[in-house]
Amino acid sequence: MPDPIQLTKALIAAESVTPATGTVFDVLEQALIPLGFRVERFLEGEAPDGPVENLLAVRGSGGPHFAFAGHLDVVPPGQGWTSNPFGPEIRDGLIYGRGAVDMKGSIAAFVAAVAGHDAPGTISLVVTGDEEGPATYGTPMLIEHMRSRDLIPDLCLVGEPSSAQQLGDTIKIGRRGSTVIWIDVPGRQGHVAYPHLADNPIPRLVRALSEIDAIVLDDGTDWFQPSNIEPTDVTVGNPAGNVIPGHASARLSIRFNDLHRGADLVERIREIVLRHAPNAIVKGTVYGEAFLTEPGAFSALIQDSAEAVLGVRPELSTSGGTSDARFLSKLCPVVEFGLVNATMHKLDEAVAVADLEALTRTYAEILRRVFA
Amino acid sequence: MPDPIQLTKALIAAESVTPATGTVFDVLEQALIPLGFRVERFLEGEAPDGPVENLLAVRGSGGPHFAFAGHLDVVPPGQGWTSNPFGPEIRDGLIYGRGAVDMKGSIAAFVAAVAGHDAPGTISLVVTGDEEGPATYGTPMLIEHMRSRDLIPDLCLVGEPSSAQQLGDTIKIGRRGSTVIWIDVPGRQGHVAYPHLADNPIPRLVRALSEIDAIVLDDGTDWFQPSNIEPTDVTVGNPAGNVIPGHASARLSIRFNDLHRGADLVERIREIVLRHAPNAIVKGTVYGEAFLTEPGAFSALIQDSAEAVLGVRPELSTSGGTSDARFLSKLCPVVEFGLVNATMHKLDEAVAVADLEALTRTYAEILRRVFA
Repeated sequence: MPDPIQLTKALIAAESVTPATGTVFDVLEQALIPLGFRVERFLEGEAPDGPVENLLAVRGSGGPHFAFAGHLDVVPPGQGWTSNPFGPEIRDGLIYGRGAVDMKGSIAAFVAAVAGHDAPGTISLVVTGDEEGPATYGTPMLIEHMRSRDLIPDLCLVGEPSSAQQLGDTIKIGRRGSTVIWIDVPGRQGHVAYPHLADNPIPRLVRALSEIDAIVLDDGTDWFQPSNIEPTDVTVGNPAGNVIPGHASARLSIRFNDLHRGADLVERIREIVLRHAPNAIVKGTVYGEAFLTEPGAFSALIQDSAEAVLGVRPELSTSGGTSDARFLSKLCPVVEFGLVNATMHKLDEAVAVADLEALTRTYAEILRRVFA
Repeated sequence: MPDPIQLTKALIAAESVTPATGTVFDVLEQALIPLGFRVERFLEGEAPDGPVENLLAVRGSGGPHFAFAGHLDVVPPGQGWTSNPFGPEIRDGLIYGRGAVDMKGSIAAFVAAVAGHDAPGTISLVVTGDEEGPATYGTPMLIEHMRSRDLIPDLCLVGEPSSAQQLGDTIKIGRRGSTVIWIDVPGRQGHVAYPHLADNPIPRLVRALSEIDAIVLDDGTDWFQPSNIEPTDVTVGNPAGNVIPGHASARLSIRFNDLHRGADLVERIREIVLRHAPNAIVKGTVYGEAFLTEPGAFSALIQDSAEAVLGVRPELSTSGGTSDARFLSKLCPVVEFGLVNATMHKLDEAVAVADLEALTRTYAEILRRVFA
C-alpha cells in the first residue's frame, strides 16, 4: 500500500509549475498501476494555454461510481523559501514544498485511500495539469473524455485544501462565479480652457461607475454570501494637467452567487456603461459560473465521515475563489474537502504529516460509506 | 527707428526656450538704449524654476505712465518644422520662427511704436523670460521691482496674441483663474473574493468625482463664460484582475471666473472628497486668480485705436488660458492686445509682415491717444 508521505514527497519533487506535463504524471501513474487502475493520459492544447497533461484513472465497473478530482500543477514558488520548494523536506512534523497542501498531498491521500478499498463499483481519479492557470485544456477536456467513455460519476470529491484552521473544519459545497469586465471609454482630447471642443471621457466613466457602485445584486442566499462587484482598476494615464484626456478605462471583478449568470451580469454592466458612454467598449470574461451542491445526503456523508475519523464536524461553505468543481458540478454532485489552506500559494507551503495520514483515513472512511 | 521686421527676426534668432536668459535680452536692450530707455536686467531664481532673466525699461517721468508687458521666452519648437524654428525665414509675406506671434513680434512692435513717440509722461517695457513656464521668477518678480522703484503704471497693455481670425478682432479684458487639484485616496489592498478584509479606494473616489461632476459653479457672468471643472486624470495602476487596489488618485483642473477664488474652490473640493474618503489627501495649486478689467475708458481707447488703424473694432473677450496679465492686474487696469494666435505653440509658427507693421501702427495710435 502506497505511503501518502512518500508519495507526497515524490510528487513535490517532480517540479510542475502550471501548466504541468510529464514527470509528475509519471509518478502518479506508477503509483496507480499496481492498484489495478486503467490509466489514460492526454497531452492537450498548444501555447499559450497548453500543452497541458490530463490523467484519467479508472478501477472497477458498475455503480456506484465515485470520483476523486484534483490537479498536479502548482503556482510558481516565488523567491525566499527556507528550503528548495521542489526538494521536499520534513521539519518538525511538516513536509515543506510547493504543492504540499494545494494539492499534491490530497492526491497522495486519494491514492493511499483507494489502495485499501475493494468494494464493488467504480472509482476514478480525474487529475489535471492546469487548475492554477486558465484551465482551457484542463478539467473541461477531462470531462469531455469522461462523457465520451460514458464514465459519469455519481459523486465527486475535489481535494482542494478546504480546511481553514484545522483539518476537517470546512467542506465546500459550492463556489461563487467569477467574471472580469473591461470598460473602455473613448473621448476627444483637448485643452481644459476649451472644454466645448473636447469630449472628456472621465465624467462618462465616473457616471457609469457611480451607477454600478449603487447596484445591490442580491442579499445573499441560504448558502451564499451576497454577490459583489469590485472595481479593481481605473486608467487614464494623462500626465498633462491642462489637457482633457482622449481615453479612460476601468476594470471590474464580480463574484456572484447562483442567483446570477456571468453573461447576464456582463450585459447588465454593458447596458449601464453605454447609457453614459455610447461609444464605450465593454468586454467580459466569465471565468466560472456559480455552482451549488445542495446540502443533502452527500454532504452529510462527508460530514459524518470527517466527524467519525477526525472528531470534527465540517461546516458547509461556499466562500473563496473558483475551483475546478465549477466544471465537475455539471456531471454530478460535487464537494471539496482537503487539507488546511493556510500556506497555499505562499512561501514555505507545508502539510503536517499527521494531517496527511488523517486525511487518508477520512477519504477511506468516505469510500467505505459511499460503497456500503 | 527700429524696423519691427528686422527686430522680430533678430529676437527669433536668439533661441530662448523657457526659462530664457541672455542673448535675447541683449538684443532687446540694444534696441532700447538708443531710444532713451533706462534698462535694468535681473537674473533671478535657481533650478528647477530658474534662473530667469527679467527686463525693466523706463523712459520719461511723471504721468501718465503706460506700460507694455510681455515675454521673450518661447515654448519648445517640437519636431517637424519646414525651416529652422530659430532661423527666421520670410516666405510669402510671413516670418516663420518660434515666438513669431507669441510674442517676439509684439515686443518688436512695442519697440518700433515707442521709437516714434515723444509726448511727456512715462513709458515702460516690462519683459520677462518666464511666461511659458511656472512664472515663479517671472512677472511676479518684475512687479516687486516696479513696486520698490515706485514705478506703478496707470495702464498696461500685454502683447499676448489676442487676435483670433484677423489682427485686431479681439482684445482680452480678463482671464479666468486656474487651479489644479490632486486627490489621493488610500485604501487597503485585498483579494476580490474577500472584500470585507479590504477597503477599495475606487468607489470612494468615484463617489467623490460623481458629486464633483454634478457641481454647477455658476452660469457665467456678463464678461465670463461659466466656470468649469474638468477631471484630467485618474490613476489606480493595478494590473491584477483579482486584487482590490490599495490606492486611487485623480487630478482636476478648474478654470474659474471672477465669482470665485482659487483657494475656496480647493477647499470646496476637499470637503467633498473627505466626506467620501476621510483619509484622502487633497492638494491644490492655484496658478492664477481670475481678473477682469471692467470695460470702460481704457478698453474703449484700445478699441477706438484698432478701429482707426485697422478698420476692425475688437471684441472684448475673457476666453482662453492664463497669461501674465493675472499678475499685472494687481497694479492697474490691464488689457491684452496682440497678433493672430492661430499658429502659437504650433509647428511653423508665423507672423504676417503686414500684421507686424499694422500692429506697430496700432500700438503707436494707442500711445498717441493715451498721452493726448
